[in-house]
Amino acid sequence: MDKTNLDLMNDCDNFPYYETAPHLYEAALDRLYSLQIAGDDDSLLGLVLPGVAEVLRGLPTWTLNDDERTLTLNTGFDEPSRTAVIAATTRAMRETGHFQILSGWRDELYPVYGRNGALLFKIERSASPLFGIVSYGIHMICYTRSKSKSEDGTVGEELNFWVPRRAKSKQTYGGMLDNTVAGGLAAGELPREALVREAEEEASLPAELVEAKAKAVGTVSYFHVRDERAGGETGLLQPEAQYVYDLELPDDVIPKPNDNEVEGFALLSLEEVRANLRRGEFKPNCAVVTLDFLIRHGILTPENEPDYLEICSRLHRRFEFPTVRVHGLK
Amino acid sequence: MDKTNLDLMNDCDNFPYYETAPHLYEAALDRLYSLQIAGDDDSLLGLVLPGVAEVLRGLPTWTLNDDERTLTLNTGFDEPSRTAVIAATTRAMRETGHFQILSGWRDELYPVYGRNGALLFKIERSASPLFGIVSYGIHMICYTRSKSKSEDGTVGEELNFWVPRRAKSKQTYGGMLDNTVAGGLAAGELPREALVREAEEEASLPAELVEAKAKAVGTVSYFHVRDERAGGETGLLQPEAQYVYDLELPDDVIPKPNDNEVEGFALLSLEEVRANLRRGEFKPNCAVVTLDFLIRHGILTPENEPDYLEICSRLHRRFEFPTVRVHGLK
Repeated sequence: MDKTNLDLMNDCDNFPYYETAPHLYEAALDRLYSLQIAGDDDSLLGLVLPGVAEVLRGLPTWTLNDDERTLTLNTGFDEPSRTAVIAATTRAMRETGHFQILSGWRDELYPVYGRNGALLFKIERSASPLFGIVSYGIHMICYTRSKSKSEDGTVGEELNFWVPRRAKSKQTYGGMLDNTVAGGLAAGELPREALVREAEEEASLPAELVEAKAKAVGTVSYFHVRDERAGGETGLLQPEAQYVYDLELPDDVIPKPNDNEVEGFALLSLEEVRANLRRGEFKPNCAVVTLDFLIRHGILTPENEPDYLEICSRLHRRFEFPTVRVHGLK
Repeated sequence: MDKTNLDLMNDCDNFPYYETAPHLYEAALDRLYSLQIAGDDDSLLGLVLPGVAEVLRGLPTWTLNDDERTLTLNTGFDEPSRTAVIAATTRAMRETGHFQILSGWRDELYPVYGRNGALLFKIERSASPLFGIVSYGIHMICYTRSKSKSEDGTVGEELNFWVPRRAKSKQTYGGMLDNTVAGGLAAGELPREALVREAEEEASLPAELVEAKAKAVGTVSYFHVRDERAGGETGLLQPEAQYVYDLELPDDVIPKPNDNEVEGFALLSLEEVRANLRRGEFKPNCAVVTLDFLIRHGILTPENEPDYLEICSRLHRRFEFPTVRVHGLK
């Protein structure tokens, strides 16, 4: 059955909201352990499944409190020492082979921020969903604009979208459609730096072009509960914030795969993109970034999309967790 | 002292959030009465101050439950009969002269929606903050684009904004800066209809131009607690959703006041707009609609605005209350 745009939103942003479903929200939280650091038990840094918290029980650097449902990192009073403990913990978790998600080990560090944007620690990228911490990334939609003539002779404008298909062999969401450029934001990196790097790595787009023409247009944020399509354990929590960019490409710039993550790019018409959305062909977070584009460009409107207001709000979820203030902190 | 962009956001969206401040949120809710209708006590329709709820105590069509802190409209099982009761109640409240806010009586009805977007009742516009219900409106920023030459000779683009100043005599936010076109959405009206009507009434913009060129670009939603600048009682709750439009105007179209609500329009440079934002010259909700414009147009970026992510989320608050699905229901 065709998916509505709200269905697509629900596929991606699928953790309950307190304001409209307090019982569901509290039931979800009651199962989970709240991640915090010693000396700052006011800050909720992540949400951890019992099966993950359990393996940390008894370790000297972690405290599991079953009454308060907290998991506390109880060592280190600066970022480097916390990062070192987290690294030792995640390496040990990987060595047990117990957590399938860690087989996608990236050797890439994600930052975790506390109140007022302080950098609290860094953590191996593939481990971040085990701790349910906020991760950051960039997504860019590249599109072209061409003149079109309708049957009655009026000249209009047509948008076409450069859409990659993920390699079938990819562990996560293999074979699904993606945004033109998408990637994670490593610790110490600025969003625009990550954008330029990923645009080159994933789509062979020249750095000068991206630097000159890519336009920052906001964020899309959602709280995702991982299912089997994500690979690894299901039920892991993944609050994510994506910095979103638009790039109108001239006709002679053709995105090309530059690594083995993408099968190939196709230039799809708006109608083809919408048909693919309805069929659930897009990776869930790429679908909602596409909805954000359609809203900002006046294609979805309050008159043609019944869930317009709900979708606009859901595309910009505000988190329980402290979030970044300044990227690029080393 | 200069206001940051986050200060502007906090001035407008100033009701606490459960996820980050559960105690503040619950303390706020504990004082308030939840508005609901008989037969549907699952739907929270609004939040009412004790001083307002008190005057309805003992009326046959209303039930005040102090234990559950609910205010229930207990008559009528269809929209017309509920609307009639609400009309009688609000007229009686007006006649007592007790509520200053009702001196701004508009004879204009706002819609209130329940689950799945059902139209539950309509209510006089000026009374809606007394019941703390969601109201809907449209905001449009008209701008011009001109070529500019920087000192090193590179040619860039400059945005200028058509900014009206509200008449000093206006009860609400008199003398403050506004968005080019802004207005409320009456029951039965489509957002685009309201836009065209208000653009004509407030800025003398031709309907054909607005119909052809105004672009729907999303919503801005916030939960505002009214202060003295809004006129009337302070502390009233005003959750609002604005449908946002951009309109790039040709140089020869000059907005002009068409009623006595606006003192005049000025074409301000981006720097002048930003200086006025910092000085708190804009009406609070117009300031945040302007921030949304600056974000969508790549002027505020993740690199130059430390609170970028927080602002993007706060601009799109999701409400406790059911909201519209289809406007224009009669």
